[in-house]
This record gives sequence, structure tokens and C-alpha cells, in this order.
Amino acid sequence: MTSPTAGEVTIDQLPLREDLRGRSPYGAPQIDVAVRLNTNENPYPPPGELVDDVTDAVRAAAAELHRYPDRDAVALREDLAAYLSVATRVPLTERNVWAANGSNEILQQILQAFGGPGRSALGFEPSYSMHPIIAAGTRTEWLPAPRRADFSLDTEVAASLVAERSPDVVFLTSPNNPTGGSIPLGELEQVLRAAPGLVVVDEAYAEFSSQPSAATLLDSYPAKLIVSRTMSKAFAFAGGRLGYLAAAPAVVDALQLVRLPYHLSALTQAAARAALRHADATLASVARLASERDRVAEALTGLGFAPVPSDANFILFGRFADAPASWKSYVDHGVLIRDVGIEGHLRVTIGTPGENDAFLTASKEVPR
Amino acid sequence: MTSPTAGEVTIDQLPLREDLRGRSPYGAPQIDVAVRLNTNENPYPPPGELVDDVTDAVRAAAAELHRYPDRDAVALREDLAAYLSVATRVPLTERNVWAANGSNEILQQILQAFGGPGRSALGFEPSYSMHPIIAAGTRTEWLPAPRRADFSLDTEVAASLVAERSPDVVFLTSPNNPTGGSIPLGELEQVLRAAPGLVVVDEAYAEFSSQPSAATLLDSYPAKLIVSRTMSKAFAFAGGRLGYLAAAPAVVDALQLVRLPYHLSALTQAAARAALRHADATLASVARLASERDRVAEALTGLGFAPVPSDANFILFGRFADAPASWKSYVDHGVLIRDVGIEGHLRVTIGTPGENDAFLTASKEVPR
Repeated sequence: MTSPTAGEVTIDQLPLREDLRGRSPYGAPQIDVAVRLNTNENPYPPPGELVDDVTDAVRAAAAELHRYPDRDAVALREDLAAYLSVATRVPLTERNVWAANGSNEILQQILQAFGGPGRSALGFEPSYSMHPIIAAGTRTEWLPAPRRADFSLDTEVAASLVAERSPDVVFLTSPNNPTGGSIPLGELEQVLRAAPGLVVVDEAYAEFSSQPSAATLLDSYPAKLIVSRTMSKAFAFAGGRLGYLAAAPAVVDALQLVRLPYHLSALTQAAARAALRHADATLASVARLASERDRVAEALTGLGFAPVPSDANFILFGRFADAPASWKSYVDHGVLIRDVGIEGHLRVTIGTPGENDAFLTASKEVPR
Repeated sequence: MTSPTAGEVTIDQLPLREDLRGRSPYGAPQIDVAVRLNTNENPYPPPGELVDDVTDAVRAAAAELHRYPDRDAVALREDLAAYLSVATRVPLTERNVWAANGSNEILQQILQAFGGPGRSALGFEPSYSMHPIIAAGTRTEWLPAPRRADFSLDTEVAASLVAERSPDVVFLTSPNNPTGGSIPLGELEQVLRAAPGLVVVDEAYAEFSSQPSAATLLDSYPAKLIVSRTMSKAFAFAGGRLGYLAAAPAVVDALQLVRLPYHLSALTQAAARAALRHADATLASVARLASERDRVAEALTGLGFAPVPSDANFILFGRFADAPASWKSYVDHGVLIRDVGIEGHLRVTIGTPGENDAFLTASKEVPR
């Protein structure tokens, strides 16, 4: 604009949808501090061989950048299926797998195909805060349902609530973000049996959990079950934005009706395939992080905090009289963790041992 | 699945939205033939220096892949604003620019914020076929409006239609895909003045056109006008998937309410910035393609075809008694062009001189 201030319109002067007025964009604060333990990233940078391989793959893809990518990302889906088949011990092919720009886009596509106006989605809160946001973005009615006071899921209560409310889509997050607990398969099945429509099991943190994957149940509930996953966490590929799912082939067919054509770039496809070739090296960090998680939980307990038992790479812990004030105090100590809006609690991502020590040191000093 | 055939569910057994039942996924056939002139790609591969620079940029980004990307893609938006400021002679900053995974995602975000259930979008057909598809995907009512028989836009008729139907969003495509014509700025303004809501000018092919960009009008219509662009065509970056827009900063603020967080990967941001540094080299192909377009149009006329005057890197031409049969005959001659569903017509993308010659040779032999 010739004059960026004169005559500039405000968002209130735009014909924005009424339900968006007064809202703020989603997202954790991106603050530049020494120790960032706020977005559940893997703290270990990709190994050098992975960087080399991603670079080589991208160089090859870049020579063809003037052409559209494979719209169906078949080779990537084959590689993801091969990884999942080993990781979950469920034989899967590329027909069972779909991929998108982060699991957020996966979840958005699911609600575009199976949710939307006149339909509803139910989730057990607190859980991944993008579930209701993506429901709103696709105009799917959001039905919040409760957890136990200790944040675990009472699947008997959950199943009867699902039967009663009859949502088109149920979200189950296992391990649950931001509370950390997993749902045993038998309990998952209680909800699956009760659900009249789809059940999306969000397994973003599955690699950190000792529970078997819900993919084990795909054969029994092919018309009901979708298992969503991401390369952002255990795979240390948050910057590459690659989410995926396992389901019956018909579910993949359905999502192809709503996906934007060529949604996955040639670079994303090439880089994700290269990263998958180094899965063993990347996932070697999982055991280290799990053991650090247990060390941090024990130390927090020793400091008089109450950490919620976690199967993931983060810990929700309390209690604080004023969690937002304590969050700010952590930042002042150079440690960025997350205020997820649960009264008296904050969430910390497990980092390197040094980062975790910095967090624990700060924990002794912040106001409770 | 243990048995991929036994007990497999079909899409009809899934709780799919009713409006999606029986639909087919959007997309041009991806057929492996020698001469591919079907998706309006730039036929010239990226120059070696661009490939090198993209590779170096990705190597640097890959070392930080365990971290989420800049959620607001500020540096990329600064670079896009700098490019647009030169290309359109309109001074723009990163506050005026938003970017996403292809202009399809840009358009989807616009309809998520300003369209949706209870709202409508109007477009003049035939035009870019994703406009009504993205309207459907966001549950925005689609209002198709006509063009003249020669596919040009009668903006006087268009303006009165827009005033009468009062759509929340109007799509104007200039140059129009698949017909090729541009809308002069004065005529664009007629529609802008009549529109009660937003007007999205889709300038995917603007670099090929001699018309000034609608960005010139942003200062006069800050609460109404959005100009969408893509790096897929002139920029030879279709595989990189980078769409963007120019608008008032408030529009960018509004889109941040509906964008999925971290929608643009660190690799996409790095690669697009590298490609933009080579804009001069890439866009050098534009003049060559425009001159080839004029040569092909003249040759088609010489062969007795009727090409529609084009300002873009493709030509819609007729007439065929049976366009789908003629399309198939082109494929049999090793030339993949596009049947865009306009009776008696096919669309050819301008390729290299050799590809265009192969197309013209086939044109002598296919059934009319």
C-alpha cells in the first residue's frame, strides 16, 4: 500500500464470518529463549546422515520442480505403510495409508468428509486443542465430554455418553495431549463398539507409549476406525510437516474426495521418504526421552509437585496457585514451557538432559 | 489388513457426507506420455543455479527439522512482497501478503473465513474448476454465472448480476483458466464497485499477461479486494506448492484465524525463498512462452482450428465434433492435453518449441 496507515481497514470492517469475530489465532507463543520445552518437539536434531539424505532427495526432486508432484503420493504412502507395518505389527499397504501436511490437515480432511454442518464431533477434554478448532473450521458441532478428575478416561462412562450423544466422529487421543495417559486397547474397544460413526484415535505420541497401536483393531472395525499419526514428534520432523493415517482403503478413497489436489509438495514427499529411511536412528531417541521423562517426573515429585503419569514426551504437572504467573516466571528463568489452560497446571516437554536440568532448577525457584 | 479383500468395506458403507456420495476425486489424468501439455506447467526445468540454491537452503533447514517452522512464514512473506512490489509496481510489505500450500489452500482459507454455510460465492464459468470444488469443500453455496459465447467477460452484465445476487465472495480469474482472456482493470473495477462483499482476483497466470495486476487497485478497495497468485506456473515451482495473495493487512489477520498452525513446512519456506532469489532467470521463460503461444495460436488457425485469444501459457481451441474422442486421439499420438469439459474444445499448455511442434503435428491427424 502506498500509505500503510492512512485509510487502513481493520478486521472489523471485513465481511468476516460472525463466529470468527473477536477470536485470536491458535498457537503457542514462539519466544526465543534458551530452553524451549513448549511444543513437544524431539530435542535431538536430525542425525547428519538424515540431513544428507534429505538434501540429496530434495536435490533430485528440485530438478523437476516445474512439474506437479504425484497427486496421490503413492511412494510415500508405501513407505509409511512399511514403517507402520513394522511399528504396529499390523500388515498395511499404501491403500490403508493417507498423508497430508501435518496431522492437522489429516484431521481437517476427516471432518470435511465425515463431519461438517449438521454433524457433530465429540472429544474428551482436556485433549489436543486443535480438535475443537478444526471442528469449528469445518463447521462441525463440537461436543465436549469429560475425563476423570485425574485426567484419565473412564471408558465405561465414555461409551455410554457416545451412545447417548451419537456423534458422527469421536476423537480419542492416546497418549492424550496434554495430560499424557494412554488408553488400553480393551477400553478403546468399549468406545468403538458404542460409536455409531467414526472413531479417530489420535496417536501423535504413540512411539513414546508402551501400549499397542489402535491399528491392531483396524481389521475388526474397518468402517469405524481411523488411526492418525505424525512425524512431528518421535520422528523429529516437525519442520517437515507430515501427518498420516491408517484406515480401511475406503476411508482413503473418501478423503481423496475432499483433499486439495497436489496438497503434498514434491519436496515434502521426497524429504519424508528420506527421513523414513532413517527411522531406526531417529527413533533411537525415543527410549532416551522416555527414561528422561521418568527421571523428570520423579524429580518433580521430589520437589513437591504432582506430575500426571505420562506415556508421552511431555508431563503435565501441578499444582500452581497461579499457573499463568508461574509460566511467566519459567520464561524469566529462560525456560519456555506451556500453559495449556488447565487450572493449577503447566506442561513441560521432555528435552535433552541439560534442558531438563535447567527446567528442574527453575522449578525450584518459580512461585507455586 | 491381514486380508485386504475379505470383509473389506466399501465407501458406501462409510458415514460419508451425503453431498460427497458418488463423486470422483478432482484431478487431471496423470498419464506417462512423451509430451505433457495438460496442467499449464512451465516446460522449462529450473536452472541449475536455482536447484543448487534450493538444495543449500533445504540442507540448512533440514538441520532444524526437529523444530516447528515459523508459523507465520514472515521471511517468505517479505520476499514475496518484495517480488510483488516490483512485478506489480504496488508497494507491498509482508503485512499485505499471505502464503499457503498452493493457491488452492489460499482459496480454501479465504472461503473458510469469508464463505461457508449460509454464505455464497459467485464465479463466471467456464473458469478454474477448483473454485466451485473449494466452495463445496467449505460448504459455501456456489452461484455460477455466465460469460459471453466467446468466453470473454461482459463486466456490465457481471456487475449487475453481482449486485442482484449479492454473493459474499466473487471470483474473477484474470487471465481466465481455461479460456485465456484477461480482464482490463477498468472493467474489473465495475465488478468491484458492484460487489457487496469480497472480490478474489485469481491471477495464477498474471506473469504471462500484458494487463496490469489487480494489486494496483488494493489501495482503492482495501476491504473488498484479494489478489491470489501462485508460483506453480510462470515460476516453474508447481512441485513446490506455493500459493500466495496480496490484500489489506486485515485480510491477512483474518486468514490467520482459520489457517492450520504450521501449515507451511520449513522446507517449503526455505525452497520458495531460494526460488524467489532466481525469479529473473525463471521468469525469462515467460517471454519465450508468450511468443510460442502466439506461434501455436497462429498455426492452429492455419490448420482450420479456432483458438480463443489467450494472455496465458495455454490455449483453448476448437472445434471438435467429439472433444473427448479427439483428446484420446492426442494421447494415442503421445501428446497429453486437457479436456476441460467445454463442448467442442480442448486446452493445450504451451510447452517447449519441440513439444509444441509435436502437438501441432498431432493436430493435423486427430479427428475433428
